[in-house]
Amino acid sequence: MATGTLLFVVNRHKVPLTLFLLIYTDLLHCQHFVVTYKSPSDCGVEEYFDISSLSCVKCGPNQRRSTTGLSCICKTGYQTLTTDKTSITCQQCPTDQPAVTKDGFGCIRCSGILSDMGTCQCPPGNVLVERDNNGNLLSEARCEMCNGNSSAFSVPNSSGDRCERCQASFITTSCACNSPNILAGGLCIPPSTLSTNVNPSVNYAQLKFSLQSAWFVKNLYSSSAACLVFSNMTACQALGNMCVMNMHSFGGLSNDACGLFNTIFRSRAAAGSTQDISYWRANLPWLYYGEEPGLASRVLQTNPIPTGFSFSGGNMNTEIKLLAVVYNVRGEFLRWEQVGGGNLQLCPEVASKQAAAFSFGTAYQESCDLSVAKLLDGHPEPLFYDVFMDLGGKKNRELLPLPTLVYNQQYNGRFINQDSMKDWYLSRRMFLVDTLSGREKSITSQPKVIRVASSVTIRFQLVPRTREGQIFPPLMTVTYSDIPITDINTQTVSATFAVEYEMDQSEARIKTDTALGVMGGVAVLYSLLKTISWKRRIASPLIDVMTMLKFALFYAGDLANVFFAVTVGTGLYWLIFYKAQQFVSVLLPLPHQEKQFVTYIGCAFALKAVQFLHKLSLQVSIDIFLIDWERPRNKVSRTVQATGELKRDPAPVSIWRTYFVANEWNEIQTIRKISPTFQIMTVLFFLEVLGFSNLALRDPWPNLQRSSQTYTPSYSLTLRYGLAATLWLCIGLLQVIFFTVFHERFVEDKIRQFVDLCSISNISVLLLSHRCFGYYIHGRSVHGHADTNMEEMNSNLKREGESLCGQRGLLPNTEIQSFQVSLTNHLRSQYDRIRESLSKANIPSRLMDTSMPTGFEQKIRLYHTMNHFLGSVIDHAHPDMDYIVKDKLMFERVIGMEFLEASEKSIFYNDEAHSFSDMLFYGNESTLLIFDTLFFCVVDLGSQSFVLAAVLTYVQQMIFCLIRNILGRKNLAKKTMVDERFLI
Amino acid sequence: MATGTLLFVVNRHKVPLTLFLLIYTDLLHCQHFVVTYKSPSDCGVEEYFDISSLSCVKCGPNQRRSTTGLSCICKTGYQTLTTDKTSITCQQCPTDQPAVTKDGFGCIRCSGILSDMGTCQCPPGNVLVERDNNGNLLSEARCEMCNGNSSAFSVPNSSGDRCERCQASFITTSCACNSPNILAGGLCIPPSTLSTNVNPSVNYAQLKFSLQSAWFVKNLYSSSAACLVFSNMTACQALGNMCVMNMHSFGGLSNDACGLFNTIFRSRAAAGSTQDISYWRANLPWLYYGEEPGLASRVLQTNPIPTGFSFSGGNMNTEIKLLAVVYNVRGEFLRWEQVGGGNLQLCPEVASKQAAAFSFGTAYQESCDLSVAKLLDGHPEPLFYDVFMDLGGKKNRELLPLPTLVYNQQYNGRFINQDSMKDWYLSRRMFLVDTLSGREKSITSQPKVIRVASSVTIRFQLVPRTREGQIFPPLMTVTYSDIPITDINTQTVSATFAVEYEMDQSEARIKTDTALGVMGGVAVLYSLLKTISWKRRIASPLIDVMTMLKFALFYAGDLANVFFAVTVGTGLYWLIFYKAQQFVSVLLPLPHQEKQFVTYIGCAFALKAVQFLHKLSLQVSIDIFLIDWERPRNKVSRTVQATGELKRDPAPVSIWRTYFVANEWNEIQTIRKISPTFQIMTVLFFLEVLGFSNLALRDPWPNLQRSSQTYTPSYSLTLRYGLAATLWLCIGLLQVIFFTVFHERFVEDKIRQFVDLCSISNISVLLLSHRCFGYYIHGRSVHGHADTNMEEMNSNLKREGESLCGQRGLLPNTEIQSFQVSLTNHLRSQYDRIRESLSKANIPSRLMDTSMPTGFEQKIRLYHTMNHFLGSVIDHAHPDMDYIVKDKLMFERVIGMEFLEASEKSIFYNDEAHSFSDMLFYGNESTLLIFDTLFFCVVDLGSQSFVLAAVLTYVQQMIFCLIRNILGRKNLAKKTMVDERFLI
Repeated sequence: MATGTLLFVVNRHKVPLTLFLLIYTDLLHCQHFVVTYKSPSDCGVEEYFDISSLSCVKCGPNQRRSTTGLSCICKTGYQTLTTDKTSITCQQCPTDQPAVTKDGFGCIRCSGILSDMGTCQCPPGNVLVERDNNGNLLSEARCEMCNGNSSAFSVPNSSGDRCERCQASFITTSCACNSPNILAGGLCIPPSTLSTNVNPSVNYAQLKFSLQSAWFVKNLYSSSAACLVFSNMTACQALGNMCVMNMHSFGGLSNDACGLFNTIFRSRAAAGSTQDISYWRANLPWLYYGEEPGLASRVLQTNPIPTGFSFSGGNMNTEIKLLAVVYNVRGEFLRWEQVGGGNLQLCPEVASKQAAAFSFGTAYQESCDLSVAKLLDGHPEPLFYDVFMDLGGKKNRELLPLPTLVYNQQYNGRFINQDSMKDWYLSRRMFLVDTLSGREKSITSQPKVIRVASSVTIRFQLVPRTREGQIFPPLMTVTYSDIPITDINTQTVSATFAVEYEMDQSEARIKTDTALGVMGGVAVLYSLLKTISWKRRIASPLIDVMTMLKFALFYAGDLANVFFAVTVGTGLYWLIFYKAQQFVSVLLPLPHQEKQFVTYIGCAFALKAVQFLHKLSLQVSIDIFLIDWERPRNKVSRTVQATGELKRDPAPVSIWRTYFVANEWNEIQTIRKISPTFQIMTVLFFLEVLGFSNLALRDPWPNLQRSSQTYTPSYSLTLRYGLAATLWLCIGLLQVIFFTVFHERFVEDKIRQFVDLCSISNISVLLLSHRCFGYYIHGRSVHGHADTNMEEMNSNLKREGESLCGQRGLLPNTEIQSFQVSLTNHLRSQYDRIRESLSKANIPSRLMDTSMPTGFEQKIRLYHTMNHFLGSVIDHAHPDMDYIVKDKLMFERVIGMEFLEASEKSIFYNDEAHSFSDMLFYGNESTLLIFDTLFFCVVDLGSQSFVLAAVLTYVQQMIFCLIRNILGRKNLAKKTMVDERFLI
Repeated sequence: MATGTLLFVVNRHKVPLTLFLLIYTDLLHCQHFVVTYKSPSDCGVEEYFDISSLSCVKCGPNQRRSTTGLSCICKTGYQTLTTDKTSITCQQCPTDQPAVTKDGFGCIRCSGILSDMGTCQCPPGNVLVERDNNGNLLSEARCEMCNGNSSAFSVPNSSGDRCERCQASFITTSCACNSPNILAGGLCIPPSTLSTNVNPSVNYAQLKFSLQSAWFVKNLYSSSAACLVFSNMTACQALGNMCVMNMHSFGGLSNDACGLFNTIFRSRAAAGSTQDISYWRANLPWLYYGEEPGLASRVLQTNPIPTGFSFSGGNMNTEIKLLAVVYNVRGEFLRWEQVGGGNLQLCPEVASKQAAAFSFGTAYQESCDLSVAKLLDGHPEPLFYDVFMDLGGKKNRELLPLPTLVYNQQYNGRFINQDSMKDWYLSRRMFLVDTLSGREKSITSQPKVIRVASSVTIRFQLVPRTREGQIFPPLMTVTYSDIPITDINTQTVSATFAVEYEMDQSEARIKTDTALGVMGGVAVLYSLLKTISWKRRIASPLIDVMTMLKFALFYAGDLANVFFAVTVGTGLYWLIFYKAQQFVSVLLPLPHQEKQFVTYIGCAFALKAVQFLHKLSLQVSIDIFLIDWERPRNKVSRTVQATGELKRDPAPVSIWRTYFVANEWNEIQTIRKISPTFQIMTVLFFLEVLGFSNLALRDPWPNLQRSSQTYTPSYSLTLRYGLAATLWLCIGLLQVIFFTVFHERFVEDKIRQFVDLCSISNISVLLLSHRCFGYYIHGRSVHGHADTNMEEMNSNLKREGESLCGQRGLLPNTEIQSFQVSLTNHLRSQYDRIRESLSKANIPSRLMDTSMPTGFEQKIRLYHTMNHFLGSVIDHAHPDMDYIVKDKLMFERVIGMEFLEASEKSIFYNDEAHSFSDMLFYGNESTLLIFDTLFFCVVDLGSQSFVLAAVLTYVQQMIFCLIRNILGRKNLAKKTMVDERFLI
């Protein structure tokens, strides 16, 4: 055996041979290749497990199986013979030499006792000698007493066959540990201040019980004593480890692990500190920072660490280098270890993903459920880590000890580290899995409880207003969980490893709030202006509840814009500054810091919705009337009485042009400056297909495509909102530009077409959005007649194309057809009087019967009256209701209010911009776009799914479009008296 | 030391004490807590590493650091004294006792040589005795010769201080191994047939070199000899392992590992086989199946294993239980191990995900890149696995050995296992990582090459036509990669573990092809019928190239439907049968089996696109004319000359009704029976938000929501297609039902509205889709006049609502307004003659000048001519171009063909179904829906992204809608002579 490296198992027996001379192919066909499961423990006492055939085989005569079960050995009292080299035989020892030697190959006579194992046994302090110095077997085994006295200082070795020198702590005069010395942990400890009455219990505060740990029972006193008396370094570390296993908790008791550690710590005050750190005493591990109040914030928030982090450029530095000293539970120094590659990360994961935890700026969180059985298997003993951050350095690598916060640490029974920072007790040293301290009977029994570091979080805090990416010392927070063992195969423990980045957000919050305040103030003024304008337009000087309500509605819209601007600005700020910074100067707000931001978005959305609904309700209740200029051909110069009844003409003016115009107006109600569906699809395409959504991840990389092999951090709500809103607005803006600059100019402009149509069809449109304010589209045909056949229509169009006829404008030689109108109260009253009779006529007809001819005929009469009245007003036929045409002042346009009051004459303001589209979706694109953006973002923030947001936004658009269309059509039919069947 | 469990390091020196009596708070403020990095190897020869302060501390006088560097020991020639128990002192030994005892605490005189280490040294075969049996130190150390002869049989032990019994293989007469016996691997081997000239090289075929492995050099001969001569079981296993490390390759040489194994295997023929398996000889590991040709397919595809798998129900059984026997490289049996939890899966992953690999039916594949440094660290020695499948069993658990295919196995230098199955050599036993065999100089040196099982695939094959989920024995395929070591810190190895499920797809393929053939044949007939119908409708009896082309186009459409039906059917079949089966009876086709399926989808799409474009081109080139029935009021009974010029009337008939009707026709061109955008959004919602896409995963679970903790398999193209197409069709169908049953009846029916409008506006529409076939919408007003004012219009509408006037139908007292028309050739020629003059008039006008009045006037004249001509035809005014009205036969409707030829009289078929919508998108919903479905699915199959597919489908719909609208409008303007400006 002296030179062997392959340890062959040699003792086995012949297997009864069965000869298979022929293997039939038929047999092969049916051969199932099935074997029966047998394991070594399935074999009987006189069987061994054949590792080749994986079955149990009978041992030879007088043999029994060995401890492993993989071979046979001789029974008690039988010596082993090796006549045949491939197997062993056993022979009973003769009666004069009844004992078997320890190697099993010889028989011997005992001078002492024959043990149950069939070997000789010597009394304590003696050794068994079976061979002489030359290796010759003695006929009688001797028991020799080891000389423990001075100069020899020997005791029996562990196998009891030799005398060895005894342990150094014993040696004063002999190897005996006499009173008052105390034998503990294999050491002979002289009497000291330390009482032997230590408390070897581990406290499980979560489970509300404590138990006597076998490990503590065995080692707590000896470690403390050896540490205190002999300054034994491993003993001191082992004592510290026991305190760490107790989660650094101490309190009233001074004889538990941490109490003993602190006693020794205090007694070492004179021995001085290590490495110039006052909390680190010579020979002792550094477990606690001091107890001064407010120390935690001084340690964590006073001195920035010298190196700065940078995301790009030549100084790029994103690697967080952590080192750990590893000790085993016995206090032995094992190694320096680079943190990463899974030593603090309990969850199994690919190395490239785990490495992302140590890339500065990447918010890392990895959680999983671990099987208790595997933990017990993989962590028979805890390892202890003292973690440092490597600061680099030219010659001497400098290390910063990472302050650790044990979340479960107790101080006098109180969980001090769960309160605010000023009460924190920082500490050092941690472990991941402790399956040892929970063993109660012996250190090899099944533990009753295991303790796992279920959450390890490293938090980096940026120095405020840094431009060089400086940080304060990072804090490691460890939360331990106690798991009572019930069924190890089904029990699981959840474990989390996280790295967080934080900066003081109060400054950003103040800026946001300031912006909100200032802009909110401006919004008040603007809303006031709007209210005044509205009061003017409805020609009511009173301030009543309605005015207050209107003000509130206007203010809702303006405040929504303020909130929207501030939130989008903030989101965009983070998106740009976080993703594009070189030296780290900003870090994203943590989820709990985003609550206010989310509230602002909610406000913006709610207020915008109010504004949108308000606009919608206004739009579906406007007054509209189509003025038909066409006069019957054969009675050109007939005078008309405004109130008189019209006689039926032989060739009536066709109503079809009015139908056509009404139909077109109905169709342009919901057209917009963008295509809403295209908008949704494009945003979705950018976010989900091109991978723009990856920009909202909590890491500093501006890449759109991520490999599945790399770690994917969680999303930042702020970035998600900033990204989605910006993208939505940008694409919306591009669409608006495309439609207004290219599409409307070169392809088709629905608004322009409508105005043209009015002109061609000889029909004017009067829209009244307020009581005394509205819009007028002048559509009087330059040809006098439009109700004609194809021939004339075409020639009219051609003449106009060749500029052979007059211009279309209201005033001679102008082209302006579109006006904003401020009506006089008188004119409006007259208008209302006509309308009222119409609605009076309308209501009873509905109440009585739809087929009542009176109501119906009255309606027609009123249509003609109104048509004639409005036509004559435009024609300046009523001197008391005359009007003037003028340009609007630039300032009037900007603030949307008229300075002149239409007291005597109505005022028609030239309006080349077709602002009557304000009464359509078309003129309210900004409101709609912002409402859609907010809707999309709010759904996304709630569901974290861009697809769902897109689908719901589409549904929302569809529903509101439908509402606007249906109500708008009803209103149009009611106001213009065109039958709804023609509005298709 | 005898009873100690804590081994304390005791020998260290006093640290010079520095007293810090006061700790200033100011100092604390500046305190940086920075330490300098030192590791034991950084300390000097006379320094030790202080594990508490993590710094180097000087040793005491005459001391040097110990091997670990963590403590100090005395220099050579100095004995250790322990006067102070907390540290050691060293004293030089006196000149008469110059040597230090082995325990270091005493000085002694040597009888032999004084070694460099300062201890005594004895010659080989001798032991050093320093103490007597009672532990007293001798004044002179003795060297005693061990007696190797009979009865004593002793040799020095490994530390050279005792005589022990020598290894059993030596003992014949003494412990000496004399010639002809050979000493190898610690055994004394008698001469045998085995030559000592073995080939200890490992062949790296991928790297094209082989090297002398230190492990093989040391152990190959001794293992083979011990296996052959002593039948040593661990030696036999060790030899087998060496063969496995050589990837089972053997060939010409009989003295490499596998050659030796085979030699021994053959020599054991008489010893019989193990477990009734003829390839498994007693004492030897089972490495190979036999060499008979075709054995692989017999083993893998003949006998199903007795247990069946079931996905649900009471017999649910999806667990694949694999067990492995684990041996170490020395051939020792370690344990039975449950496969799972990462023992065959090299990639780190959460246990719950790894467990998915052993859930039957879940296609599992996990790949990752592993760091070579970590592999070297984690696998110092390879482990060998013999994998079995646990078949269960009441009393005796039965195990099925898993046949293994080593992909890189060589036979005479040829990679036999990379060819077809008939050449395969199946084997047993595998390893995952071998960092041992590539060590060249010594077994502790850095390896030159490591070998990793970079791909492990377990493939299950279903028994054809099984109803009980029976499978054939699964096959494990192992592919090893050889990685030459260059830089262990940056090198990575990719590793894959996969579980595949396969069934014979030839039957399914035959069924698919049969269905395609049969339906394709039917499609030929149907297309022929269509071609005949088309020939009839264009009234051309000749079979020319155009006919062939038309046939091809019709056939394209029909064949597309066939392909579509077959592929959707197949996809749906797999979706339903795979996801819903209880006992496993079908398994999904593997990706390489899906190629044909994808081709079919491609065909369906291409052919459908051809059909769609064909229909589109037909639709934008139809003949359409709006017949105005309105006559001037003051000349009711004027006779009209068909060719004569009309005089200008004083009150012309207004063209606005025609404009209105043309405008409406323009608007209904692209309306559909579904909302295409809603369709896309809904499908996206189902797939991406509700998680229907999870149904297309390659596992048998029909869950929509998957937790992120569970394994997500890859997608099956077949299922993805089946799912997307089915969902699209279902939602489309639901929409069609909603729109036709609910929306059109209760809200709005655009087609019906158009027909109504025709009637109200007194305008008929004649559509000619073929030369002699088309559609006619009869719109003659029942009131005689429609060109009137609002009063009369409203009263007309009211009268009609109260049924006070005649019915709208073409025939008296009928209501049918919509007809299919078969024109006579004569009528069509007449029509063409009028049209021709129009187009003749059109061409020169464009060539010369647009302002030419002649062309323009001619156009107007021709409009009137055509209007009058068609009006008079409908009015039966031309006896030679008369028509009859009749019902279409049911059979005619079904096959879409008219039996009667319109030879003498044109035939108007009643058409209540408004089939003129066939000329619009509206009537071709099925084609459009299928085209969209295929477009969506094809994009998705190409990109594996439903979002991209949705976006592109939307863009596609938008583009085709735009094309249809623009071209349709141009055609409408051209054919009806309505100015394009009115089609808004």
